[in-house]
Amino acid sequence: MKALQYRTIGAAPEVVTVPDPEPGPGQVLLKVTAAGVCHSDIAVMSWPAEGFPYPLPLTLGHEGVGTVAALGAGVRGIAEGDAVAVYGPWGCGTCAKCAEGKENYCLRAEELNIRPPGLGAPGSMAEYLLVDDVRHLVPLAGLDPVAAVPLTDAGLTPYHAIKRSLVKLVPGSTAVVIGTGGLGHVAIQLLRALTPARVIALDVSEDKLRLARTVGAHETVLSDARAADAVRELTGGLGAEAVFDFVGVEPTVATAGAVAAVEGDISIVGIGGAALPVGFGRLPFEVSVNAPYWGSRGELIEVLALARAGAVSVHTETYSLDEAPLAYERLHAGKVEGRAVILPNG
Amino acid sequence: MKALQYRTIGAAPEVVTVPDPEPGPGQVLLKVTAAGVCHSDIAVMSWPAEGFPYPLPLTLGHEGVGTVAALGAGVRGIAEGDAVAVYGPWGCGTCAKCAEGKENYCLRAEELNIRPPGLGAPGSMAEYLLVDDVRHLVPLAGLDPVAAVPLTDAGLTPYHAIKRSLVKLVPGSTAVVIGTGGLGHVAIQLLRALTPARVIALDVSEDKLRLARTVGAHETVLSDARAADAVRELTGGLGAEAVFDFVGVEPTVATAGAVAAVEGDISIVGIGGAALPVGFGRLPFEVSVNAPYWGSRGELIEVLALARAGAVSVHTETYSLDEAPLAYERLHAGKVEGRAVILPNG
Amino acid sequence: MKALQYRTIGAAPEVVTVPDPEPGPGQVLLKVTAAGVCHSDIAVMSWPAEGFPYPLPLTLGHEGVGTVAALGAGVRGIAEGDAVAVYGPWGCGTCAKCAEGKENYCLRAEELNIRPPGLGAPGSMAEYLLVDDVRHLVPLAGLDPVAAVPLTDAGLTPYHAIKRSLVKLVPGSTAVVIGTGGLGHVAIQLLRALTPARVIALDVSEDKLRLARTVGAHETVLSDARAADAVRELTGGLGAEAVFDFVGVEPTVATAGAVAAVEGDISIVGIGGAALPVGFGRLPFEVSVNAPYWGSRGELIEVLALARAGAVSVHTETYSLDEAPLAYERLHAGKVEGRAVILPNG
Amino acid sequence: MKALQYRTIGAAPEVVTVPDPEPGPGQVLLKVTAAGVCHSDIAVMSWPAEGFPYPLPLTLGHEGVGTVAALGAGVRGIAEGDAVAVYGPWGCGTCAKCAEGKENYCLRAEELNIRPPGLGAPGSMAEYLLVDDVRHLVPLAGLDPVAAVPLTDAGLTPYHAIKRSLVKLVPGSTAVVIGTGGLGHVAIQLLRALTPARVIALDVSEDKLRLARTVGAHETVLSDARAADAVRELTGGLGAEAVFDFVGVEPTVATAGAVAAVEGDISIVGIGGAALPVGFGRLPFEVSVNAPYWGSRGELIEVLALARAGAVSVHTETYSLDEAPLAYERLHAGKVEGRAVILPNG
Repeated sequence: MKALQYRTIGAAPEVVTVPDPEPGPGQVLLKVTAAGVCHSDIAVMSWPAEGFPYPLPLTLGHEGVGTVAALGAGVRGIAEGDAVAVYGPWGCGTCAKCAEGKENYCLRAEELNIRPPGLGAPGSMAEYLLVDDVRHLVPLAGLDPVAAVPLTDAGLTPYHAIKRSLVKLVPGSTAVVIGTGGLGHVAIQLLRALTPARVIALDVSEDKLRLARTVGAHETVLSDARAADAVRELTGGLGAEAVFDFVGVEPTVATAGAVAAVEGDISIVGIGGAALPVGFGRLPFEVSVNAPYWGSRGELIEVLALARAGAVSVHTETYSLDEAPLAYERLHAGKVEGRAVILPNG
Repeated sequence: MKALQYRTIGAAPEVVTVPDPEPGPGQVLLKVTAAGVCHSDIAVMSWPAEGFPYPLPLTLGHEGVGTVAALGAGVRGIAEGDAVAVYGPWGCGTCAKCAEGKENYCLRAEELNIRPPGLGAPGSMAEYLLVDDVRHLVPLAGLDPVAAVPLTDAGLTPYHAIKRSLVKLVPGSTAVVIGTGGLGHVAIQLLRALTPARVIALDVSEDKLRLARTVGAHETVLSDARAADAVRELTGGLGAEAVFDFVGVEPTVATAGAVAAVEGDISIVGIGGAALPVGFGRLPFEVSVNAPYWGSRGELIEVLALARAGAVSVHTETYSLDEAPLAYERLHAGKVEGRAVILPNG
Repeated sequence: MKALQYRTIGAAPEVVTVPDPEPGPGQVLLKVTAAGVCHSDIAVMSWPAEGFPYPLPLTLGHEGVGTVAALGAGVRGIAEGDAVAVYGPWGCGTCAKCAEGKENYCLRAEELNIRPPGLGAPGSMAEYLLVDDVRHLVPLAGLDPVAAVPLTDAGLTPYHAIKRSLVKLVPGSTAVVIGTGGLGHVAIQLLRALTPARVIALDVSEDKLRLARTVGAHETVLSDARAADAVRELTGGLGAEAVFDFVGVEPTVATAGAVAAVEGDISIVGIGGAALPVGFGRLPFEVSVNAPYWGSRGELIEVLALARAGAVSVHTETYSLDEAPLAYERLHAGKVEGRAVILPNG
Repeated sequence: MKALQYRTIGAAPEVVTVPDPEPGPGQVLLKVTAAGVCHSDIAVMSWPAEGFPYPLPLTLGHEGVGTVAALGAGVRGIAEGDAVAVYGPWGCGTCAKCAEGKENYCLRAEELNIRPPGLGAPGSMAEYLLVDDVRHLVPLAGLDPVAAVPLTDAGLTPYHAIKRSLVKLVPGSTAVVIGTGGLGHVAIQLLRALTPARVIALDVSEDKLRLARTVGAHETVLSDARAADAVRELTGGLGAEAVFDFVGVEPTVATAGAVAAVEGDISIVGIGGAALPVGFGRLPFEVSVNAPYWGSRGELIEVLALARAGAVSVHTETYSLDEAPLAYERLHAGKVEGRAVILPNG
């Protein structure tokens, strides 16, 4: 079959032919209908050879949707032809975290050498994808594959971050979204669907703020040195009960800290590498700062249910597998609006 | 191998010889070291032929501990010889409940004909037990098999009931345990280990109340018509923030209702068949009444950790597999103190 | 001043002249701008003389909004002329419940003879209302008095019931509202604003179901013997994660029990007097049933914030104080659409 | 009456004679039976004149216990002679935070110029203390004044920090306490009473670690450069689910970050001024870092209930009011074991 592989450190990914995978006991083979192109792939492909964490060549794609093509021995509860989404952050399935479906925080993944598809294991940018266990599949149940595939990461990641702050997003509260791109523009929709909070979106261009308003932001603020003051003013001086930073660079984490309310949550989702110092007297009382990663199995079920109800949609542009390298180029150049999706069998 | 089977409606269970099971793909074969004898088995064996839910013959035993004897194809993360406890309430592993480890509330078990061992599937009262998936095993990690096996139901069930009320069991609060037998005497220990609440135990004999005090009850009250008044008096008139009824007959659910505090929780765990009417003006404001069933995978991990820390122990008496029918007789006659445990390979 | 009083058991309330109240130390005098007419007043006026809990005559009105007319000695944090809503379920302010703002569940109200306005203390259906403490006032901050006044009970009561079930109302879940009148039609709006759940409304007439759809119900079902089956079908057999019964008579609590999902919540808010029996095997696993009462101070702040954001509005019809007896007559006759509001100084 | 006042920036506090206070409307006058000496007073007295936040002279003492000496007009629910503890972090009583009893996070305190006793308002180190509202008093109900007074801050502050992490401190989890002095040695007891977690205490001397073990720490580790490795080893590599740093200097916050587990909580309670940087990749996944302040009214009620049950006790040494300057000297010199308590009427 054809697959998009990252083969050489520093080189662009290539479409190559690899052997067709076959499902072993307990495994499920998917014919891939859609695979999402993610910024973090570009980050991975920018890492140096020394310390590169995955074996090469690596078939890319940690967002995947497909139809069941074959079942390994012993698999039950699913049938050939079923349309499913792939839960990406695979874990051991048995540790204390996995026992609650939080495989993104599996305690034994490293010890057992378990890796997500596209981030160590062969990914979804291929005609077929081997899934290690039926528990990593969620029925699409009517969702369009292209619309659904970005939800497995670009939807699930902000969903998880938001869900842990829901209790603070009561009527009268404010949520701030910094960065309204792939994840951020989904976060705005999720906040509107899940909470009564007022949503204030920050980004660096008027174009992006226009998109933010289109998808539901109540207010938008240009993300510059005056942004924090503007948010304070919009909130009567109190600040925001939850702040989601989808960028994670020095200016954005500083803004996050400057706009948080007493007892507020700050989630630094963006992998820009910056950090916000937390200590007594540094931020308003009991502001809580964390950096979450992806989400749980139960949360993916919920995100897809939300999409099925029409409450969240992702802007997408589609590419064939042969065009996948181009998709990465365009993403790298900042030319993708929303999310690029590969159709490996399209 | 030898197995204890319930073969004929109304008859006593018998030790018989059945074929040795072999693990298929994804399955794990255990050599059983200990199997718990539970009151609910006696309830099952009292049901009439009409509507009897399980195929006969039925190998009994829904509490099981063993060592891994063989791995089916594709199983990883565990090795032959590992000592493990079995999580009993098997589910599909993929529905919204199972995705959070709440397989006791699986939404597809009936549709997929999935049954717990000893309650439909062949149980632990045999030399070998076939476990359908590695996720249903928790490492003993040093726990004694006899001490550990009752925790998989008689420990897990009260643990789950208590855990959902933890938020109400703050300092100054009171928990009432009605029925201090198999589950109740574990519940008292769990409450002491998990909460700062004052624990009041109710039962019908001074002997049982003596045991209750031994395992940690702060106060004991004879369970009769004056019991509710006594509990009210002990709580300055306020009542108990959480009530756990491990009997579930008319007088006990009535007492449960009569001792609950405003915003209190009542969990009816006992399968005595009685019900407590809930409506405006019937109980103190916002008393919440529920009837839980068994527990989640994560909770079993926690119960075993608690036992490992020495915070909970179950009184046991042991029997060989050949003596298992006797153990059921004695349990039925009310002669078992704590929990009877079968040693199928002892 | 003029006041509407219930003076004689069994008689209609009358407009009479009573002395003008004056604020003592710590008290606040309000000039009443709006007072809500509630079904529970009619219940109170139907009670027999024997055991009638309040001293007569009783100035009615437990929903009130006004402007500050005078401050008692020592009051700070508020000024004459401020427009405020009254938090009705007054408590002692210091017990463990009141310390968290849950004065509706005050542990000392009875001992200290503290009663809500209109339910023991002089109520809001008068030109002036004496409020015992500034903590029982919430700023209107721009809300229209007539629109706001029903929120202090008809808004706060369902808000509280819904808030305690929010954690279960995830994407893909269902909420059922039984009874779409005064409280129920607000509950539908609250559920839409606060949760991504699908809302199914039940009532006995097509007219009422039409209103339910207008205010946001996704589905409506005629409340008859087939209602439970219809809800089961709409939910793929799973039932509803939260059920709110604003009627509380035998058929509605039976329906509530019949439509609840595993681990679902049932809140019986209606004071119809019926009760739902809860015990092992009676309802799906771990369905939790409670009967809540009114709400907390923090929740009233949140309800008013929600109204300020435009997310909830109550249908009202207004009356002068002299017409107040007529308003009760019309309510009793089922002729009030939404909520009747008295304008004592209008 | 006599009072201990801080009168001149940089000078030691002095015992002086000031007018006897009298309770205005709504206020309560206490005859002080015990007042706690706190490290934070020493911090306050080290601040420079420029920007000093409180008017001088300042009567010290933010921990206070007394008997009711006189009631201002309009006060009810309490009587002369009642023994009470003072809730120190006074707020407005009406804002969204105060409505839930979280007056420590009052949104209007600054605007309304409301200050805690001893931290702006006249404090408890005097024969009499004026309390602004009866809601700031909690009945001692049998507790010894000297034993109780440190609980109002040195008990309440760690209690609040621990309570917000309770949900993570399940069986099998670990809590780390850094700094086992005034607050830390109470924190260890609270963790033992409230959770089944294993408690690991860190401090810089063997003497202090001995005290830590005496009050309940399961393990102790010398707080040096190898401490984090030692904690990792004790936890099988996983780290601690909750870390409480009662020091807050650079080495301790670094250790806190180095020992936290995936999804762990770090609370920086100590006012040492250091900060821990939080960002993607800096700490294990989703570690959440915050700096809390004092506690809520409901929490003080709970802490006192815990002491009444014998679950927490504070080492104290007592001084007369005339000896109070000496107590501060000894505290400053590190010579106080546990907590120094002043007896203004002793």
